[in-house]
Amino acid sequence: MTLLHTIFLVAITAEAMSGAIMGMRREMDLFGICLIGTVTGLGGGTVRDVLLGHYPLTWIENPEYLTFTVGAAFVTAFIARFLHHLRQVFLLVDGLGLVAFTIIGCNVGLDMDAHPSIAVLAGVITGIFGGLLRDVLCNEVPLVLRRDLYATVALFTGLLYMLLLWLQVSASLASLIALGFGFTFRVLAIRYGWGLPSFTGEGIRGFE
Amino acid sequence: MTLLHTIFLVAITAEAMSGAIMGMRREMDLFGICLIGTVTGLGGGTVRDVLLGHYPLTWIENPEYLTFTVGAAFVTAFIARFLHHLRQVFLLVDGLGLVAFTIIGCNVGLDMDAHPSIAVLAGVITGIFGGLLRDVLCNEVPLVLRRDLYATVALFTGLLYMLLLWLQVSASLASLIALGFGFTFRVLAIRYGWGLPSFTGEGIRGFE
Amino acid sequence: MTLLHTIFLVAITAEAMSGAIMGMRREMDLFGICLIGTVTGLGGGTVRDVLLGHYPLTWIENPEYLTFTVGAAFVTAFIARFLHHLRQVFLLVDGLGLVAFTIIGCNVGLDMDAHPSIAVLAGVITGIFGGLLRDVLCNEVPLVLRRDLYATVALFTGLLYMLLLWLQVSASLASLIALGFGFTFRVLAIRYGWGLPSFTGEGIRGFE
Repeated sequence: MTLLHTIFLVAITAEAMSGAIMGMRREMDLFGICLIGTVTGLGGGTVRDVLLGHYPLTWIENPEYLTFTVGAAFVTAFIARFLHHLRQVFLLVDGLGLVAFTIIGCNVGLDMDAHPSIAVLAGVITGIFGGLLRDVLCNEVPLVLRRDLYATVALFTGLLYMLLLWLQVSASLASLIALGFGFTFRVLAIRYGWGLPSFTGEGIRGFE
Repeated sequence: MTLLHTIFLVAITAEAMSGAIMGMRREMDLFGICLIGTVTGLGGGTVRDVLLGHYPLTWIENPEYLTFTVGAAFVTAFIARFLHHLRQVFLLVDGLGLVAFTIIGCNVGLDMDAHPSIAVLAGVITGIFGGLLRDVLCNEVPLVLRRDLYATVALFTGLLYMLLLWLQVSASLASLIALGFGFTFRVLAIRYGWGLPSFTGEGIRGFE
Repeated sequence: MTLLHTIFLVAITAEAMSGAIMGMRREMDLFGICLIGTVTGLGGGTVRDVLLGHYPLTWIENPEYLTFTVGAAFVTAFIARFLHHLRQVFLLVDGLGLVAFTIIGCNVGLDMDAHPSIAVLAGVITGIFGGLLRDVLCNEVPLVLRRDLYATVALFTGLLYMLLLWLQVSASLASLIALGFGFTFRVLAIRYGWGLPSFTGEGIRGFE
C-alpha cells in the first residue's frame, strides 16, 4: 500500500531524529546517536516481529530502511540546533507515524493469523516500543508510559482498523479511515492536553 | 496440569499487581500501569520463549492471559491504597508464583529437548525476568539481582525438579514436591532474611 | 576456526569479568553477579541470533559456555580487589574480544544469507550488545554509545572483513587480517584517546 509505505518511511525518519536528539542530550557520540536513532525508528517493528516470530525482520529484509534512520540521525546531529523552529511539524509527523506504525503492525499480526486482540496489540507495540526502547537506552522511565494520550491513540486506532476490516471494509479504505481518525485524535490530544488518569504510588510500600 | 495452571493464573495476576504498584510509584498513567503489569506477569515466559525459539508465545496462543494481567493492573490502580494490609498474602502468592513459573519454565525447556542445564535456566528465567523487565522499565537496578534469596530459590527449585524427573518420579509428583520445597525455602528466606553474600565494587575502577 | 574460537572463549570470560565488576559496584549479590557476567559475555551473540532468527542460540547449543561466564563472574566476585593491577591486560583482552566477536557475528550473518550490510551489522551487534545490556541492567546510559572508538572499531573491522571475503581472500586469512587490523585500531584508540565527535543536546527541547 503506497500511502502507508510512504508515511512509514517519513515516520521512521522522524522517529530516528527524535532518538538522535535524545541521544545528544545524553552526550552520546556519533555512533551512539545513529544507533539510538535506528532503535527509535525501527525498534517497535522489531519487538513486534520478535514477539510474533515474524522473520526475517523488516530491516533485515529491507536494509535500505537503515539508510533512512542512520542518515536522519547523522544529519540531525549537525543540524539539531536549528530544529526547534520545526517543533510543531515534528509533533505532527510523529503523530502520523504513530498511527501508520499501528496500522502496519495490525496487518503483520493478521498475516500471522493471530487472534484479533493480538493483532491490535501488535499494532500498539509497533507504535510505541521504538520510543520505549529509546528511553530505556537513555536511562529514563519511558515517556509513553506516562505521557498524554499516545499509546491510547495507538490502541483506539488499532481497534477501529480491526473493526472496519471485520465489517468487510476494504483494507485500503480502512487504513485511510483509521489514519484520519488516529491522527485527528492525536492532534486533539496534543492541542487540549488530554491524558489518562495517572496514579500516585506514594506511601504504598512493600510490594516489590 | 491443573494445579500448576491454577497457580500460574494466580501468579500472573499477583505479578501484574506488583508491576502496577511499581508503575504507580513512577507516576505512570493508566496505560503504562496496564503495560507494566502485563510485562511483569508475562515477561519471564516471553523472554524464555524468545531465547528458546519457542513460538507462538504463551500469551499469543492464549490471549485470555492478557485479560488477567491487564485486569489486575487496572483494578490495582484504583485499590492500591487499600492493599498494604495484604502485604503478607502478597509475598506468599509471589513466592508461590516464583516456584510455579520455574517449574513451568523447566517443562518448556524439556519440551524443546534442551540440555538439562538449559531447562533449569529456562525455569529460572521464567521465574525472574518478569520482575527484571519491570525494574528496567522503571529505571531501577533490578531487585532480583540484589535481593534476598529470590533467584536462588528458583535455581534450587529447578534443580530439584529436574533431579526428581531424572529419578523417574512422575511429572505431577515432581511438580508437587518442587512446589512444596521451593515455597518453603522462599518463606524461610523471607522469614529469616536469608541472602547470598553481596560484594562491594567500591574502589575497583577501570574495567568498563 | 580454532584461533577465533579460542579468542571467543577468552573474550566471553573477560567480558563476564567486566560485567561482574560492574554488578559489584551496584551491590548485586552473587547470583546477580553471575547473571550480569553471563549477559555481558553472551548477550551480544544472543541479541544477534534473536534478531536474525538464528536458532538455537549459541549458549543453548553449547551450554558449556555458561560455565565460562558463570565461573569467571563467580571467581571475580572474590578476587576483584586484586584485579586492578591487571587493568592493562584487561583492556587488551577486551579489545581482542570485541574484534573476535565482530568477525564471528559477520560469519553468522553470512550463514543466514543476509545482505552484506546486515552481516556487518550482525558483527557490530555481537561486539557491542553485551556491554550495552550490562549497562541497561546496571541502570546506566550505555558506555558504548558514548565512549571512545569502541563500536567504530567493530564497524570498521566488520567492513574490512567483508571486503576481504568479497575479494576472494580465504576466510581464515581474512579473519587474521581483520583481527590484526581491529586490535591495532582499538589499541591506538585507547593509547591516543581517539573518539568520535559527540554532540550536546543542551537547550534542544520539545522533541520527545
